[in-house]
Amino acid sequence: MKTETGSMSYRRRSIGSKPHRPLPFLCAAAALLLSNGWAVAQEEATPREEEATPREEAVRWAIAVHGGAGNARPEDVDSERERAWREGLAAALATGGEILAAGGSALSAVEAAVRILEDSPHFNAGKGAVFTHDGRNELDASIMDGASLNSGAVAAVHHVKNPIGLARRVMEASPHVLLGGEGAEEFALEQGVELVPTSYFFTESSWRSLQKELEEERQGQVDERRREDARALSLRRTPGHLADGLGTVGAVALDVHGNLAAGTSTGGRTNKRYGRIGDSPIVGAGTYADNRACAVSGTGHGEFFITNAVAYDICARVRYLGQSIRVAADHVVLQVLVAQSADGGVIAMDPAGNVAMPFNTSAMLRGYLRAGGTPEVAIFRD
Amino acid sequence: MKTETGSMSYRRRSIGSKPHRPLPFLCAAAALLLSNGWAVAQEEATPREEEATPREEAVRWAIAVHGGAGNARPEDVDSERERAWREGLAAALATGGEILAAGGSALSAVEAAVRILEDSPHFNAGKGAVFTHDGRNELDASIMDGASLNSGAVAAVHHVKNPIGLARRVMEASPHVLLGGEGAEEFALEQGVELVPTSYFFTESSWRSLQKELEEERQGQVDERRREDARALSLRRTPGHLADGLGTVGAVALDVHGNLAAGTSTGGRTNKRYGRIGDSPIVGAGTYADNRACAVSGTGHGEFFITNAVAYDICARVRYLGQSIRVAADHVVLQVLVAQSADGGVIAMDPAGNVAMPFNTSAMLRGYLRAGGTPEVAIFRD
Repeated sequence: MKTETGSMSYRRRSIGSKPHRPLPFLCAAAALLLSNGWAVAQEEATPREEEATPREEAVRWAIAVHGGAGNARPEDVDSERERAWREGLAAALATGGEILAAGGSALSAVEAAVRILEDSPHFNAGKGAVFTHDGRNELDASIMDGASLNSGAVAAVHHVKNPIGLARRVMEASPHVLLGGEGAEEFALEQGVELVPTSYFFTESSWRSLQKELEEERQGQVDERRREDARALSLRRTPGHLADGLGTVGAVALDVHGNLAAGTSTGGRTNKRYGRIGDSPIVGAGTYADNRACAVSGTGHGEFFITNAVAYDICARVRYLGQSIRVAADHVVLQVLVAQSADGGVIAMDPAGNVAMPFNTSAMLRGYLRAGGTPEVAIFRD
Repeated sequence: MKTETGSMSYRRRSIGSKPHRPLPFLCAAAALLLSNGWAVAQEEATPREEEATPREEAVRWAIAVHGGAGNARPEDVDSERERAWREGLAAALATGGEILAAGGSALSAVEAAVRILEDSPHFNAGKGAVFTHDGRNELDASIMDGASLNSGAVAAVHHVKNPIGLARRVMEASPHVLLGGEGAEEFALEQGVELVPTSYFFTESSWRSLQKELEEERQGQVDERRREDARALSLRRTPGHLADGLGTVGAVALDVHGNLAAGTSTGGRTNKRYGRIGDSPIVGAGTYADNRACAVSGTGHGEFFITNAVAYDICARVRYLGQSIRVAADHVVLQVLVAQSADGGVIAMDPAGNVAMPFNTSAMLRGYLRAGGTPEVAIFRD
């Protein structure tokens, strides 16, 4: 049976299709919603989970940043590196906060904060990007505007100094959402976005990480690991590796106009091969922003962020299940991802500026600043 | 305030945290779920929308295919082309159906059906792929297994005869989800996946479509359009273009083991530039499969499928809102996308083998076959 919508082969049953007779509709809908909601709640709830959390007073503006989640332990990280991370996160918060305090957009605050982290050699994005198997740098980034749902992203670029800036240009100056490789750099040239020589991205620690992995490959250690569950293990690294660059960077923000934005940027994975693209340039996986629900930026085992549509799923839980940002983010990171042995964390912000920053690893570089508050930066489970 | 989950700055209120005292918990939860569910229903329901539709008896197996959505009208399509489309869709259904009838997996049925469409010169995927601005072919595909949530995808490959086959190999023989460009073809060579010379993809109609667009550019027609809303217009084509190749191809299937799968493959857009990647290789946007909810393959204005996470959103509505597959798919395609002036359609199947095939354009090449049934193929709004 075909209907005018073009759908085929479906029978219809109507309930409550005359909303001007509210009472029967209400009773039927109530019964149905209750049973559906209860069924969903049964599937979703745990004794510790709450379906609602009182919203803190909406803040005028707020921003959160992350510098990656990973399994570094305090004893693996020298104090100089830790100080560099904390300073970078604080600078990103300060820069983004300055824009927000002046009435600027969440989008601009996110871009500016991420640029700070990209320009630092201490994070795996932009300047500090790790090396691929071939000794190159392949950078990805995405950005999204929660007001319009417009987004922009770039994947596998090699010479872009600030991928988050190019991602924003894709969003605002092209009809596209995602550009990759040489074509993305052609667009960058047309747009006057700064390109740099490959040597710009060289850092000792990133190079060392690659050499270490290549050595392990030669010694057959990686082959041995590959005989096990390749997917689960592909992110298992020694703490040493992770201490060199925990991962992706990102930011989420709420501005005084009530708009949310999110952005993510990465150098990918050390020893990356095959033109592998992770979740960072994938809207819905590593980045999402929607004024009706939340802004999310993720970091971790990218493949699982894609297959679970992590960033979008958190927002869907807020919108459809009415979960708080903390319950939604915790569920996805601490239950869904953990059940699949997937490392990772997110920073997630709701339309009132409340933030959740769950991670299922031992560390996530993160920070939060809101109007009238002081910057809070953390690395481990303090 | 920091909790052991690593979340910061959040107050907690506990409801029903002692599930062994069910009655107060039930009452509170009922009240809460009712109010949340009602709020959501208010946001989501329209007079024509139903929250539940009686499930047809679960079928043993079922498969649906599409060959793209677009604004072709019957008068624009010559009978020879139309016959070729119908035969291609029927062959895809038959091939996939044969596998399912023999107890084969939904994943294999999806791959086989999509391969049929890729091997045909009449669809914009594989052999019939359209040309980029530079006169090349850039192919994308993705595939997903609803049982495991594993997925595989390739983007911007130039010499892969069957991108859906390479996507499956990415899923099954690598720890990754998405490979792009030259790296993806390196992986193809390692895996023994067939590569072909560029000339393989040449078809008169695809070449003509490119020449026509380049001519329009030279005559300034495209520049004029660009002064308008570039994003909204980027898919506006004359019916003639669309009759030459309506678009992306895809399949969704349910097998006798109760598993769902989905796959999508495309040659992208005529005159594509900048390494633009659409929704077809993006899990969550153009493809999604989850045994708990549905299998989806989409076609249309890819950027909007990405920003709205279309394939994932349909499944989220089924899981979280308890919507039927038809209500969920219709809502996303006929309301969400239409509200954003985004052309497109999907084929969506639920765990019982029911299918919905909504599209908001004048045509979508589509077909459906289930155990004990006869193949149904359609192009326009019959």
